[in-house]
Amino acid sequence: MKAHPTVSEYEEMTGFRYYGQPSKYEKIFRWIIANASLQGNGLSYTPLSKLNGNITPNGLHFERHHYGVPIKKPEEYRLEIIDLEGRKRIFSIDDLKNENLLTIKTFIECGGNSNVMYNPRPIKSSVDHIHGLFSISEWTGISLKILLEEFVSLYRNKKNIWIEFTSFDKGSYNISLPIKVVKEKSLIAFYQNGEPIRPEQGYPMRLVVPGWEGNMWIKWIRRLEIGDKPWHHREETSKYTDLFKDGNARRFSWEMDAKSVITNPSPQAPILHGKGPMVVTGVAWSGRGKISHVDVSIDGGISWNQAKLSGPADTKSMHRFYYEFEWQGQQLLLQSRAQDDTGYVQPTKDQLRSVRGENSIYHNNGIQTWAIDKNGIAENVEVS
Amino acid sequence: MKAHPTVSEYEEMTGFRYYGQPSKYEKIFRWIIANASLQGNGLSYTPLSKLNGNITPNGLHFERHHYGVPIKKPEEYRLEIIDLEGRKRIFSIDDLKNENLLTIKTFIECGGNSNVMYNPRPIKSSVDHIHGLFSISEWTGISLKILLEEFVSLYRNKKNIWIEFTSFDKGSYNISLPIKVVKEKSLIAFYQNGEPIRPEQGYPMRLVVPGWEGNMWIKWIRRLEIGDKPWHHREETSKYTDLFKDGNARRFSWEMDAKSVITNPSPQAPILHGKGPMVVTGVAWSGRGKISHVDVSIDGGISWNQAKLSGPADTKSMHRFYYEFEWQGQQLLLQSRAQDDTGYVQPTKDQLRSVRGENSIYHNNGIQTWAIDKNGIAENVEVS
Repeated sequence: MKAHPTVSEYEEMTGFRYYGQPSKYEKIFRWIIANASLQGNGLSYTPLSKLNGNITPNGLHFERHHYGVPIKKPEEYRLEIIDLEGRKRIFSIDDLKNENLLTIKTFIECGGNSNVMYNPRPIKSSVDHIHGLFSISEWTGISLKILLEEFVSLYRNKKNIWIEFTSFDKGSYNISLPIKVVKEKSLIAFYQNGEPIRPEQGYPMRLVVPGWEGNMWIKWIRRLEIGDKPWHHREETSKYTDLFKDGNARRFSWEMDAKSVITNPSPQAPILHGKGPMVVTGVAWSGRGKISHVDVSIDGGISWNQAKLSGPADTKSMHRFYYEFEWQGQQLLLQSRAQDDTGYVQPTKDQLRSVRGENSIYHNNGIQTWAIDKNGIAENVEVS
Repeated sequence: MKAHPTVSEYEEMTGFRYYGQPSKYEKIFRWIIANASLQGNGLSYTPLSKLNGNITPNGLHFERHHYGVPIKKPEEYRLEIIDLEGRKRIFSIDDLKNENLLTIKTFIECGGNSNVMYNPRPIKSSVDHIHGLFSISEWTGISLKILLEEFVSLYRNKKNIWIEFTSFDKGSYNISLPIKVVKEKSLIAFYQNGEPIRPEQGYPMRLVVPGWEGNMWIKWIRRLEIGDKPWHHREETSKYTDLFKDGNARRFSWEMDAKSVITNPSPQAPILHGKGPMVVTGVAWSGRGKISHVDVSIDGGISWNQAKLSGPADTKSMHRFYYEFEWQGQQLLLQSRAQDDTGYVQPTKDQLRSVRGENSIYHNNGIQTWAIDKNGIAENVEVS
């Protein structure tokens, strides 16, 4: 044995790994859509068709960056909170970590997830690409209830208290949220699935707002400023809003409606085992509470069958479902339809269009249809 | 942009990653103890002092290999089940995956975890090294209830049905388990924390036996053989048993007793922020059920204070606890003590020795003491 082997030599010699990696036989990656001429603006998608269970591993969590991935040394990091009178509090990472931390398992979905589903001509793409701006993790950090305690008390007689959250990315990405909501349910997270948050997820810390659309979850957070009205920033006015037929836009539509999608079979995951018993699986979630049940149709929504939900149904979490039937080799029109515990039922694409019109590119939770041919090959289609 | 950039060139150009990795500022690794002259026999430890929340990321899950990490192409993989009459059933991965799968969040602890705690002279080491053969994940796979349904029915009139589980590692690592227990609670898992199991955790599949010691959880599983008595293999006779004072050995002691340990502060995680409000955190678990509460002592077990448990207390899962107090800069003797919902209370080291004697090197769940000096530096000590 060499006196000073390198890390990889030592790993090779002993058969152990300092930090483990996936099997070389599982080529599972995020699909990146980004323009190299606009470095750091783009997307990478969670490969839903290749995963199972009820959590997304950190390396495969979706990304949406507007201004790249900024890097800051943890010892140089400070969080500022500015109150209504302009006074400033400053916190180091150690200040924030030395608290009773909170862990929440909750999903995050980009407001623009599934936006190609607004296209009346169904694009021939995969579940990963169409619906993969959706992931689920356990987030651990300081509750905003604890962090903002002083201000909640200070401004308790004021009706409208808003907070502007700002990132240290190149564009100072920022949005406004009402204090009465965030103090009840949000946290500033330092850990994702047990380890420090990855650079692309906001290292050293990000905002977590369970059930609300992803662009609210400010990454690389550097400042909270308290105000008495929303800021009306770009990402909450011209973006992430829904333009209706009458010319009015729906704004501050933060909660993600109940949704589900079948991940297997799907366009990148055909049926390989031929006729016989077959298990369909997929995922369902709601920004308003628990998924109470999921139905699966094999005939394009004419008849429905209740699927099995896996595991306890946590609030604002993800629920995997399984539906087993005997496949005779016939053509199928596979759909899933989620219902949450508020009674809300996932709409068809037609129902969604009748309410929202055809201008929006956000918040599409319509029912997905996969046509399966007699060879088990799936494609995205529209049924009416 | 080059016509055919490499993966890393494309990542560099776009600012996105195909498979994410931790921040370069977080040097968090498994500590490996392995002898290069016996390739593949050794250990790597979960760095408990660097993690938070209630789950272990896959890259930092502990490893215990006896005969290295065997590699098999998934398309060549087969699982054999041999019945009492010697008849053989053979399954491919696709056969096994085409089922209503089950997801369980549960801990795994090596039977030899914390074994240096039997040493009456406390070794000067870290929480990661002393207690890090412990991790927690979500496992997804086929329930043994489904897989063994036919045999449970076939042999329902026989009293003693055991199953031998065998690995395809170089030593054909194997153990025996009673069918009546495994059929109720176990699964053969293909996914860990949402993605295919990593090579070092048993790719393509391993046994998961919630609450039971780690060496039962056969990795790289290739065969189940049904018998009418246990096999008495090496790893369930000379190893993973407790030799008592009277010369008798305690065998088949599968369930892991309730245990807890403070992870911060600890020897590799000193107090850095000086006197004032201070939050102690750690982890607790029980192989028999839920953790009902955890107490923390700052005076070596003279007085106890109830800690806060984070999140819902799932059965055979892990529970993080937090305890806040005002540190005056005095010396501390920090201890934690877990109780599970059977009423069982984690014993002191003296209580453990009085029952087990001093021969065993397995199943040590005694209370850990960290002495903290006035500079916030922690070390492993013994109090009586």
